[in-house]
Amino acid sequence: MQQLRKMDRIQIAQINKYNVIRCLMREGPINRAAIAKRAGLSIPTVMFITEGLLKSGFIRSIGKGVSSGGKPPEMLEIVPERFFYIGLDIGRTMIRAAAVDAVSRQVACLREPTDNPVPERKFVDRIAAIILKIAAQLKTENDRILGAGIAMPGLIEKETGAVLFSPDFGWNNIPLQEWLAAKIPFPVIVENANRALALNEVFLMGGETSHTTFAVNLGYGIGAALVIGEDLYTGASGTSGEIGHITAASQGPICHCGNRGCLEAVASGAAIAAQGKAILESRRPSVLGDLAGGDPGKVDAALVFRASDMGDREAARIVNKAAEYIGIGLSMAINVLDPDRLVLCGGLMRNSPSFLEKITASIEAHRMRQAGRAVIISAGTGGEYSTANGACRVLSNSLWWNRKLPV
Amino acid sequence: MQQLRKMDRIQIAQINKYNVIRCLMREGPINRAAIAKRAGLSIPTVMFITEGLLKSGFIRSIGKGVSSGGKPPEMLEIVPERFFYIGLDIGRTMIRAAAVDAVSRQVACLREPTDNPVPERKFVDRIAAIILKIAAQLKTENDRILGAGIAMPGLIEKETGAVLFSPDFGWNNIPLQEWLAAKIPFPVIVENANRALALNEVFLMGGETSHTTFAVNLGYGIGAALVIGEDLYTGASGTSGEIGHITAASQGPICHCGNRGCLEAVASGAAIAAQGKAILESRRPSVLGDLAGGDPGKVDAALVFRASDMGDREAARIVNKAAEYIGIGLSMAINVLDPDRLVLCGGLMRNSPSFLEKITASIEAHRMRQAGRAVIISAGTGGEYSTANGACRVLSNSLWWNRKLPV
Repeated sequence: MQQLRKMDRIQIAQINKYNVIRCLMREGPINRAAIAKRAGLSIPTVMFITEGLLKSGFIRSIGKGVSSGGKPPEMLEIVPERFFYIGLDIGRTMIRAAAVDAVSRQVACLREPTDNPVPERKFVDRIAAIILKIAAQLKTENDRILGAGIAMPGLIEKETGAVLFSPDFGWNNIPLQEWLAAKIPFPVIVENANRALALNEVFLMGGETSHTTFAVNLGYGIGAALVIGEDLYTGASGTSGEIGHITAASQGPICHCGNRGCLEAVASGAAIAAQGKAILESRRPSVLGDLAGGDPGKVDAALVFRASDMGDREAARIVNKAAEYIGIGLSMAINVLDPDRLVLCGGLMRNSPSFLEKITASIEAHRMRQAGRAVIISAGTGGEYSTANGACRVLSNSLWWNRKLPV
Repeated sequence: MQQLRKMDRIQIAQINKYNVIRCLMREGPINRAAIAKRAGLSIPTVMFITEGLLKSGFIRSIGKGVSSGGKPPEMLEIVPERFFYIGLDIGRTMIRAAAVDAVSRQVACLREPTDNPVPERKFVDRIAAIILKIAAQLKTENDRILGAGIAMPGLIEKETGAVLFSPDFGWNNIPLQEWLAAKIPFPVIVENANRALALNEVFLMGGETSHTTFAVNLGYGIGAALVIGEDLYTGASGTSGEIGHITAASQGPICHCGNRGCLEAVASGAAIAAQGKAILESRRPSVLGDLAGGDPGKVDAALVFRASDMGDREAARIVNKAAEYIGIGLSMAINVLDPDRLVLCGGLMRNSPSFLEKITASIEAHRMRQAGRAVIISAGTGGEYSTANGACRVLSNSLWWNRKLPV
C-alpha cells in the first residue's frame, strides 16, 4: 500500500535526486542512461539532477565509458573525499568512533574504554573530545565534515536527541545532543544505538527497499530495531525496539529498568557476566575460575563464553540458558512482526560461533511454526564498528531528508 | 522518513485523487476550495479530479453553499448509493456479514452461528450463500456491488488469499479466495480478521495518518495488527500480528498451534471456556455451575465472565489470570512497537467492563516504564460488526490501490 502523505513537487524532486545518488553510490561509475533505467526516471530528469550534482562537486566525470553502439557515454561517480561523516558508538564498555567518506567507506576509526559515565557533563566533554580527535585524523577542512551521529544505548527523545533513560549508563533526562552541539563546530544528532546498528546492517545486506529486517543487538544490554524497506520504524515516541525489557522469566531477577525478569536481566552480556561472577563466589573449582585467576572482578561475558567452549559445565549452562531466553524473545518478534530477515549482532555474537546456532534452535522451538515463513536468520557482518558506521548513516539520512546536505 | 519508491505521474495522480475522496468522505458536503485547502492541492487539480468523479457518478453537486464573500461555492458530496461493499467476519462461533455504502455507512447486516467448518468445500458453499443473501438485502443492481471482503482468523497467504493455517478452524492450505471467486459474481478478497478489525477501528478513531495503532482482537483466539498511519503493517509473508502465539506460560498447556503455553492457550475465549468447564467437572458447587445448570457443555467465556462478576471466586481467578497474561503480552508489544494507540477489541472485551482495567493494570506492571510514553489504551468502539465493516474496508482499499474502482 502507498504512503498517503501529500506529495508536492519539491518532495518528488527530492526523492528522484535520492534515487540518482543511490545509483551512483551503489553502481558508480555509471552513465546517465543507466541511471535513468535503474532509477526509473527520464533521461532529461537525470541530466538535470546530475548537472546540479556536478556543479556542487558531489559527483565528477571520469571520462568516456564503453559504447554499446553510438557515441561512448560519459561515466559519473561520487567524489569520495567531497564529504565526511563522523559516527560514535557509545557503549557501556567501549566507545568506538568511525568516519566514513561520501561513498560510505570507513576512512578512520578509534576506540577507548568507556570508564565512568558520570558526572554526565564531564563525560560529554570526553565525547566531544573524541569527535574532534577523529575529525583531526581526517586531515581535511572542517566544512567537509558534515557532522557527527551519536549512537547511544537507551531511550532517546525523537525531537531533541535527549537521553530520556539509559539503564546501562544510569542516565535520566540528559540533553546529550544539546550539550554536544554547543561543543563541536558541526551538526550533531543522537539516535538509539540499536537503530544505528540496524541501519548499517541493512545497508550491508543490500536490497533495502524490498525487505523487512529485524536487527537485534546482543551486547552489554539487549535491544533491537525494525527496518521496513530502508526506513527505520521508530514508533510514536521514539522508544520502539526495547525487546530487552520483555518479561522473559517472571520469577527472574530484578532488572535495572525496575521490572522483574526482563530478557536483559537474564540473557544480556551484563547478566551473563553477573552469573559467571556468582560461579566464582561459590568457590567451587571451575574452568571459569581458573581463567579469571580466581578474581570475580575479571569475569565478563566473553570469559564465560570461553569457559563454556572449554568445557565448563556451569558456564555452558549460563550460555545455553541465555540463548534459550533470547530465542523465546525473538520468536515473539517473528510471530508479531513477520520479518524476512532477522540479523543477530553485537558483542555476544562475536564471543562464540555456536551462539547463533543455539539461539536459532530456541527460536525454532518457540515460534509459531506457520508464521514468519520467509525469515532468514543470520549473524551481522558489520563487525566491531558497525554501530559507529550506522551512526554516520543516521546523520547522513537526517541531513538529507531535512535538505541540509550541500548537494 | 519518506517512502523511497519511485513516484510516477500516475501514482501521484492516484494519491491526489485519494486525498480528494478522503476529504469528501470525512467532510462532505464540501466545496472545491475547501478540498484544495484540506488536501494541500491546487484548485485546478481539485477541479480536474472532481470533474472526473462527477462524470463517473461517484460524487454529485447539491447546489450552492454559503458564501464567505464572492459568489457562493458549489457543494459536492459522495453519492452514498453509487457503490456498496460487502464484508464477512468468519468467526469460530459466529459468522457476521455487513454491507456498507460508498461513504462507509453500514446499510445491512446479518449473522448466523458458524457450526461445523468441515468439510471445507461445503462450508465455503455456505459462505458464498451468505454473501449472496446480504447482497440480496441491498436490493440494488449487481454492478453496484463492488465485491466482498472476507475476514478470516488464521494465516492468510498475501498473494492468493489462501488460508495457510487456521487453528480455530482446523484448516490447512484451503484456497478460500479462489473457491469463493468461482461462486460469486463479483471480486472477493480474503484477509486476516485481526487486520480487517484494526483497519475499521483506526477509521473510527480518525486521524489515521498521524498515529501508530496496535489493535488487539481478544475473542475465541487472540490476534493483533499494527497500523502505521493508515497503512496496515503486513510483514514479509503476511503472517504478522500473531501475538496469541507468544510464549506466555512456559509450563502452560499445549496450544493448538503445537507449542506450549502460548498466550492464546491460557487467555483466549477458548482457554477461558475450557478452564470454566474444568470447574464444573471438579463437581464443587459454584456460581458458574449454577449458571450452566451443571452442564459443562453450556460453559463459554461469556458465562465465566458473568460468574466472575457475580462473585464466583474460581471464575474470577480465571478472568484475572487471563487479564494478567494479556497484559504481559501487550506490554511486550508496547516495548517493541511503541504505538501511541493500543485498542482492545473483540468478544472478550464485550463480556465485562472491568476487563479493560484489569488488562491495563497488568500492562502498567510489566511494560518498561520509560518506553511507549505516548500510548493511550482504550476499548474498541466498532461493536459486534467491526470486523465485518473492516472486511469491506480491506476490499475497498484493494480495489482502490489496484485501480479497479470505477471512479
